[in-house]
Amino acid sequence: MARLIEEKDASEEVRTVYEDIKATRKTDWINNFWKAIAFHPPSLRLLWTQVKQVMAPGALDPLTKEMIYVAVSVTNNCRYCISSHTAAARAKGMTDEQWAELLAVVALANETNRLAIGYDVPVDEKFLQE
Amino acid sequence: MARLIEEKDASEEVRTVYEDIKATRKTDWINNFWKAIAFHPPSLRLLWTQVKQVMAPGALDPLTKEMIYVAVSVTNNCRYCISSHTAAARAKGMTDEQWAELLAVVALANETNRLAIGYDVPVDEKFLQE
Amino acid sequence: MARLIEEKDASEEVRTVYEDIKATRKTDWINNFWKAIAFHPPSLRLLWTQVKQVMAPGALDPLTKEMIYVAVSVTNNCRYCISSHTAAARAKGMTDEQWAELLAVVALANETNRLAIGYDVPVDEKFLQE
Amino acid sequence: MARLIEEKDASEEVRTVYEDIKATRKTDWINNFWKAIAFHPPSLRLLWTQVKQVMAPGALDPLTKEMIYVAVSVTNNCRYCISSHTAAARAKGMTDEQWAELLAVVALANETNRLAIGYDVPVDEKFLQE
Amino acid sequence: MARLIEEKDASEEVRTVYEDIKATRKTDWINNFWKAIAFHPPSLRLLWTQVKQVMAPGALDPLTKEMIYVAVSVTNNCRYCISSHTAAARAKGMTDEQWAELLAVVALANETNRLAIGYDVPVDEKFLQE
Amino acid sequence: MARLIEEKDASEEVRTVYEDIKATRKTDWINNFWKAIAFHPPSLRLLWTQVKQVMAPGALDPLTKEMIYVAVSVTNNCRYCISSHTAAARAKGMTDEQWAELLAVVALANETNRLAIGYDVPVDEKFLQE
Repeated sequence: MARLIEEKDASEEVRTVYEDIKATRKTDWINNFWKAIAFHPPSLRLLWTQVKQVMAPGALDPLTKEMIYVAVSVTNNCRYCISSHTAAARAKGMTDEQWAELLAVVALANETNRLAIGYDVPVDEKFLQE
Repeated sequence: MARLIEEKDASEEVRTVYEDIKATRKTDWINNFWKAIAFHPPSLRLLWTQVKQVMAPGALDPLTKEMIYVAVSVTNNCRYCISSHTAAARAKGMTDEQWAELLAVVALANETNRLAIGYDVPVDEKFLQE
Repeated sequence: MARLIEEKDASEEVRTVYEDIKATRKTDWINNFWKAIAFHPPSLRLLWTQVKQVMAPGALDPLTKEMIYVAVSVTNNCRYCISSHTAAARAKGMTDEQWAELLAVVALANETNRLAIGYDVPVDEKFLQE
Repeated sequence: MARLIEEKDASEEVRTVYEDIKATRKTDWINNFWKAIAFHPPSLRLLWTQVKQVMAPGALDPLTKEMIYVAVSVTNNCRYCISSHTAAARAKGMTDEQWAELLAVVALANETNRLAIGYDVPVDEKFLQE
Repeated sequence: MARLIEEKDASEEVRTVYEDIKATRKTDWINNFWKAIAFHPPSLRLLWTQVKQVMAPGALDPLTKEMIYVAVSVTNNCRYCISSHTAAARAKGMTDEQWAELLAVVALANETNRLAIGYDVPVDEKFLQE
Repeated sequence: MARLIEEKDASEEVRTVYEDIKATRKTDWINNFWKAIAFHPPSLRLLWTQVKQVMAPGALDPLTKEMIYVAVSVTNNCRYCISSHTAAARAKGMTDEQWAELLAVVALANETNRLAIGYDVPVDEKFLQE
């Protein structure tokens, strides 16, 4: 089980990242993921920079990004990631109905992926031209 | 490589599904995936019923559903599925910028999934209550 | 692409394994997988010993074992493995109809696996007792 | 953790599916998977239709189908799915010896899949012709 | 949960393997993995032979081999395997800093794998020649 | 297939990253992966920063890092990634013998991962204390 670095025990370097996480997310709470990665401060800094940039509003809205995150986490069977990103998606407005449809699409995609792989379906000319 | 059942060679049972695919998608074209599954008509019928229901507009819009499909297909490394659903997402309005952000989120999620798994991060109390 | 060690170029050590493969399978043909692994003779010997034991008739018949092999290979998206073990299953009597049902079960299992993971379904007491 | 819809709390729509599950399986017990999916009745109905058709006796017998299910679930690391389908396979006659051989084939296939992928073994001409 | 065969309950055949494990590893302790596999003695014998050969010092040193094992186990999300091989790597000298860097590389590789797959990057001529 | 941004067609922003890649790697060659990611310059910059930091010599030497990269890429079945990182490992001194042992460990780990998952082996007390 991960050793978690609590805020009161954090080095100056780690605390700076924690403060930026709290400011960016407008919360006073740090979830366990960051407390675990803080074990290796260079990873913490690098990763937070990346998450902050990739998950910011852009051509895709933040809720769509969170739902894509959940889709990958379910496919990879990462319990922590499903829990944290489902909570994040809910905080951004995901309804129960949307969550159920998200899982239905993820499940369907995992099913049809194996049919395409098993039957070894050749990619249509038309898709290659695009 | 899959044996593909072309429309002209299709049995009555298969043709009926092909016609419904074309009517539902407002196209006169059947992509290879369906021609491969047609090898086993009961699978073809069952699968088309499922795809038609799950991918229909609902609490999630069709473009979001296609992007979730692409996220799963990239994670599973299914070339056919990435090609066909990227084309479908583009047909539903996905821009180049959105596609690039979609891949960035998928890649980030695959990265952080392994950090959460490797560090064995315990699920926060707060996530369990929700 | 793998460097393949053809029979005429094989060392004594490799040739001995090749001969045993041909005798065991009652064929005069070595498929590419073994010619690739022959690059590292200790791996070749160890692996052939293992395949010979695990795939031999036992509590499960050889055709069932081949179909389980295909199920794993489709789930892992290994093209070579799907091709070679589908051919082996056909050689052991798998019909077209059985192949289609095999793929349908593999696809369904991949779908429901993601629903069980996504909804985080708790294992029933009854299953734990067994 | 999934919210489970118990029979006494089920809507008419959900209850109808539950009754069909019990009748089809000749049991008076609904396992947690269905109680979790019942959260989204359209998914419940669609999925049960699919499971009922795909897992019914056909060109493959029900025990073989359950073992294929277990093979996929072990490869995907889905704890719930392994537990429930191992129990189902046992109920259909799988012996301890068969279970051990099933796991041995699944493990071997996962091993050789990576050797075929790592060495990038080209598919033999002979397999392509078939 | 696995049925574990303790040393005192082991058959002659199983005990012989247990003794070889203890002698090879210079320990008087058998970890649960072997006690679980002992359920099927032919698998136990075959697997121990394989582990003993593959993990022995060779062209790669034992610590590097253990870290490769951890990399695969994190990617596959196998909790038991991560725990046991992280412990083994630590026993062979892996420092906290090395562990953190190992996880950082595993996470990065999982990220860039999905970018290469998603963008469908063609293999460079130069890599094919090598 | 990815659209590749060649150096002569690169924007100022992309060219700056390309120059840093060439300077850091002491080469005048950019491999296709970077030319594909250049489609989205913010991803290119962020990713190169990350790769440069994570793959730099640290507590683990660069060759060990490349071999860990190959282990993950084989497990994920990413052809491009296996090709490019095997080439990189060779350039850093990996011998044929080391490559063969690397694949043998990756294959073994994928095998035993499924046995640990299938038998549901409980983590030993001893591993939890560490």
